Amino acid sequence: MSKDSLFIRTLRGERVERTPIWIMRQAGRYLPEYRAIRATTDFLGLCKTPELAAEVTIQPVDIIGVDAAILFSDILVIPEAMGMHLELIESRGPVFPDPIRSAADIDKLSTDLLERLQYVFDAIRLTKERLDGRVPLLGFSGAPWTLMCYMVEGKGSKNFDTVKSFCYQAPASAHRLLDMLADCVIEYLNAKIENGCDAVQIFDTWAGVLSPSDLDEFVLPYVTKICDALKTNGAPVIYFPKGIHDTSKLAFLNCNALGIDWTKDIAKAKAEAGGKVVQGNLDPCVLFASKDKIRSDVERIFAAVGTGGGHVFNLGHGILPTTPVENARFLVECVKDLSSVSADRAQIA
Amino acid sequence: MSKDSLFIRTLRGERVERTPIWIMRQAGRYLPEYRAIRATTDFLGLCKTPELAAEVTIQPVDIIGVDAAILFSDILVIPEAMGMHLELIESRGPVFPDPIRSAADIDKLSTDLLERLQYVFDAIRLTKERLDGRVPLLGFSGAPWTLMCYMVEGKGSKNFDTVKSFCYQAPASAHRLLDMLADCVIEYLNAKIENGCDAVQIFDTWAGVLSPSDLDEFVLPYVTKICDALKTNGAPVIYFPKGIHDTSKLAFLNCNALGIDWTKDIAKAKAEAGGKVVQGNLDPCVLFASKDKIRSDVERIFAAVGTGGGHVFNLGHGILPTTPVENARFLVECVKDLSSVSADRAQIA
Repeated sequence: MSKDSLFIRTLRGERVERTPIWIMRQAGRYLPEYRAIRATTDFLGLCKTPELAAEVTIQPVDIIGVDAAILFSDILVIPEAMGMHLELIESRGPVFPDPIRSAADIDKLSTDLLERLQYVFDAIRLTKERLDGRVPLLGFSGAPWTLMCYMVEGKGSKNFDTVKSFCYQAPASAHRLLDMLADCVIEYLNAKIENGCDAVQIFDTWAGVLSPSDLDEFVLPYVTKICDALKTNGAPVIYFPKGIHDTSKLAFLNCNALGIDWTKDIAKAKAEAGGKVVQGNLDPCVLFASKDKIRSDVERIFAAVGTGGGHVFNLGHGILPTTPVENARFLVECVKDLSSVSADRAQIA
Repeated sequence: MSKDSLFIRTLRGERVERTPIWIMRQAGRYLPEYRAIRATTDFLGLCKTPELAAEVTIQPVDIIGVDAAILFSDILVIPEAMGMHLELIESRGPVFPDPIRSAADIDKLSTDLLERLQYVFDAIRLTKERLDGRVPLLGFSGAPWTLMCYMVEGKGSKNFDTVKSFCYQAPASAHRLLDMLADCVIEYLNAKIENGCDAVQIFDTWAGVLSPSDLDEFVLPYVTKICDALKTNGAPVIYFPKGIHDTSKLAFLNCNALGIDWTKDIAKAKAEAGGKVVQGNLDPCVLFASKDKIRSDVERIFAAVGTGGGHVFNLGHGILPTTPVENARFLVECVKDLSSVSADRAQIA
């Protein structure tokens, strides 16, 4: 049933009756219902308790009416399963107290992940059961470059000079780690799909911090490898590299859709995307604006990419914790309303 | 004499014998000689003492051999002169303890700046005297949008949600402040040029945090106003908006050159720049790499934009405090060496 959902049909490139919407970090701190669950455990505890993860995953489907659920988790569960100690404090950002800084550090990493990530697959099965086909379930992973940024920097970074220095000074080690991570991501996403995810998204939050030549060397080969190796069994694949200028560099990727951040002209991105579906790209801060501004920005995006297919509505980055729930709900209504073919207006295609 | 310098002739769009180079934040913490001066006073004290500002301004000309000096200062001297209390702690970033949050806060700002910024003009005169025509002197200002980001956020921001909310919720106030800042920047840069600066650069560090439509509304009209109103008397104008995807949006600006950050393909930027000179765009982190990597990245940039004119070499962002001085010096030598028409190699144009 989920396979015929609006979200999945749109990702497959079909013409659709209206534009689907989901919101990055839709299961998160802006929702009082999320905060109530979160108060009972820490962030990793929430990820690792299938019952709770399923509950917060489904909350935004009920509360704001999105067209897809995304399994509550974190991209850093992979390095944690590889043996790195992870401290996840939502307000401070993730910290690895013992970051990767040498070939010897890489040698210590385990790639035997699936058993340690069983809690993720249990959460998928439980969430699918509870969703009962209402909306499809999206699974996700970090991309190798973004995972390596966290693993090498050890914490948030302004300039990413530590991970870049690692790449420049020990390129063989950097490539070994990236390749190892690509294999882990493939295994992890394949298992997510096998366990019931209807689509998967690869987050490459830090793709945009590199020069074009470093992007070609340290990012794209590993995303290419992942996209080519996934056993999707029909599940669409979305790649979201934040901050990339040149979408035409991604046109060749073996995936269905590209996430487009809010700083990008989505019409231009669509034109460069080689026929792929685009996803995005409202500035998350617009949800602090008046309803008129929210509506006019939705209209602007629809004017740029049309409404009959080829586009999944989303923010250009995760929803911010201080966002009024009412505005998130209004956005979802707006997208549904303004993109419906039954709406009493000419369709832009 | 400075008006016929390599740097100025390049900015005017003339064919030149080699590519000039200067480095953003070249007068800064990576230099032991800077740290020695800085140890005697705080950051604002250094800005406000012409004798010391002149000394650190000239240091990189002597120590690493750059082709232009840039007057040591900070973009936030404008809001400080407008009456905002500024705390500048280099390692923590600037803080305005009483940020602008309302129309009433804007009313309190003074636009009677020049007398309060006399220390800047004194530093220019002293620096010019000491440089004695060896290299030209560049002056700079923040752009209205970037100044407003600091003034409204009050400190560094991850998402710029406070300043964007201000723009969305009180657009008339936001535009009033931006217009006031544009007038201040015009007056300030005109006075810098009158007092001896041979060129000026407008830094728009946070231009890239906005959507294309917000860029059109909150950034470009004010930069346009500034570029149109400057009494340059032949001094070239450089605009550096960090993180902008679409350089063609800047082609119409009444300025000589555009700064291009390191995430951008400089050949593409040059093609979109409407005949303007481009400046940049080496990733500052490349200065942590081996000399072979530094050299090959310089060659890559020259392969992209040529060496006979139309390009000022620079980093794509400020040099980082932990950069080895030796590598900065090597970069300058590399640029001079690899771009000289006398070099025994075919010129790429």
